[in-house]
Amino acid sequence: MNPTPAMRRLVVPAREARAVRLATGDRVRIVDLEGRQVGDVFCFAAEDPSEHLSAAHTRTQLGRLFPAVGESFVTDRRRPILTLADDTSPGAHDMLIAACDPARYRAHGVEGWHASCAENLHRSLGTLGLRTSVVPQPVNVFMRIAIEEDGGLTWLPASTRPGDGVTLEAAMNCVLVVSACPQDVVGINGGNETTALAIDLLPVHESPERVPALHDQGETQ
Amino acid sequence: MNPTPAMRRLVVPAREARAVRLATGDRVRIVDLEGRQVGDVFCFAAEDPSEHLSAAHTRTQLGRLFPAVGESFVTDRRRPILTLADDTSPGAHDMLIAACDPARYRAHGVEGWHASCAENLHRSLGTLGLRTSVVPQPVNVFMRIAIEEDGGLTWLPASTRPGDGVTLEAAMNCVLVVSACPQDVVGINGGNETTALAIDLLPVHESPERVPALHDQGETQ
Repeated sequence: MNPTPAMRRLVVPAREARAVRLATGDRVRIVDLEGRQVGDVFCFAAEDPSEHLSAAHTRTQLGRLFPAVGESFVTDRRRPILTLADDTSPGAHDMLIAACDPARYRAHGVEGWHASCAENLHRSLGTLGLRTSVVPQPVNVFMRIAIEEDGGLTWLPASTRPGDGVTLEAAMNCVLVVSACPQDVVGINGGNETTALAIDLLPVHESPERVPALHDQGETQ
Repeated sequence: MNPTPAMRRLVVPAREARAVRLATGDRVRIVDLEGRQVGDVFCFAAEDPSEHLSAAHTRTQLGRLFPAVGESFVTDRRRPILTLADDTSPGAHDMLIAACDPARYRAHGVEGWHASCAENLHRSLGTLGLRTSVVPQPVNVFMRIAIEEDGGLTWLPASTRPGDGVTLEAAMNCVLVVSACPQDVVGINGGNETTALAIDLLPVHESPERVPALHDQGETQ
């Protein structure tokens, strides 16, 4: 889906991340522009970034490994922070696997620096003047992890088609970070070719006269 | 199994927690004294408690929902911190569900104060002069969570028999916390009757003359 005139698009370049501030009720759509690309999503409470979206608390609250459309992700203080409002992707997402970081790539045998979602998180928060002492378990949109009966996990290539996306609605004032995962070793990003994502800032349908309080950085159109 | 003369036993009373310092190579056995009781286990690096056992990084490192005997739990810096050395329980454990906390019991409709693993963690670390700003996703020993094909989670009563236990070996100098989970609403602790656990401090077989550097508090025998 191409952005409409009422929609602002923030491109998340391949292997990078972008952070945006959202006000309660704002909606964003995370779009896989070329397909088969995983996004690591983090979210922090605007008034106190030490409160963050927690995969473990979300699983506990919902009794599910991942929210269904209409359900909310909650924080480590069990407060709803983002609602999964829509999903046009094949529906496979993950909340089990940690964000990639320098130690992960060293363990893979990669020599020298390698981009990672953990570094992307810190850098993109920095553009908003924020920092975090923890790298929370991310919401890995479009990531396919199969769970075997014995508890074994298998990393599968993402099956998203170009333009597939998930729509998230802010349940509180928050800071959203989306990292176009630079993982090019384990095959989660189709063919190990990492590509860009987009954060589409959707018009607020509920109150058309309202101007979303979105303060972002980087490319928009 | 009753403690032998060479073994020190630290009882974790029902609904409470205990913290112990472990040196690399020390072994402890977490014992379900009466059966059907879940234990929330946390572990922190001794030299820097901001580094802690991480369920997400352990899943990622091992490609499994829970370590097999012989495998190690790792920290959020991907360093081995505890090795699952032995398991005489039915083998069901959990690393998906967040530690219970006051917000969880409020959501259950409990009025007034209720003991929780999160508060137990803070209190027991305090007895060693330590504190943590985060409540990591715990290792919930003996906890049975069924995963349905659609990602649904079901809380099942623990099936441990009296005396069942798991043996953990410290892979670094660390602080281990075991909370006898006070959850008496959702049925994970058999019949919602919460009971005591024990931390058995095992002799170090590899170097019999070595005195384990265990500094604990509370009841020992």
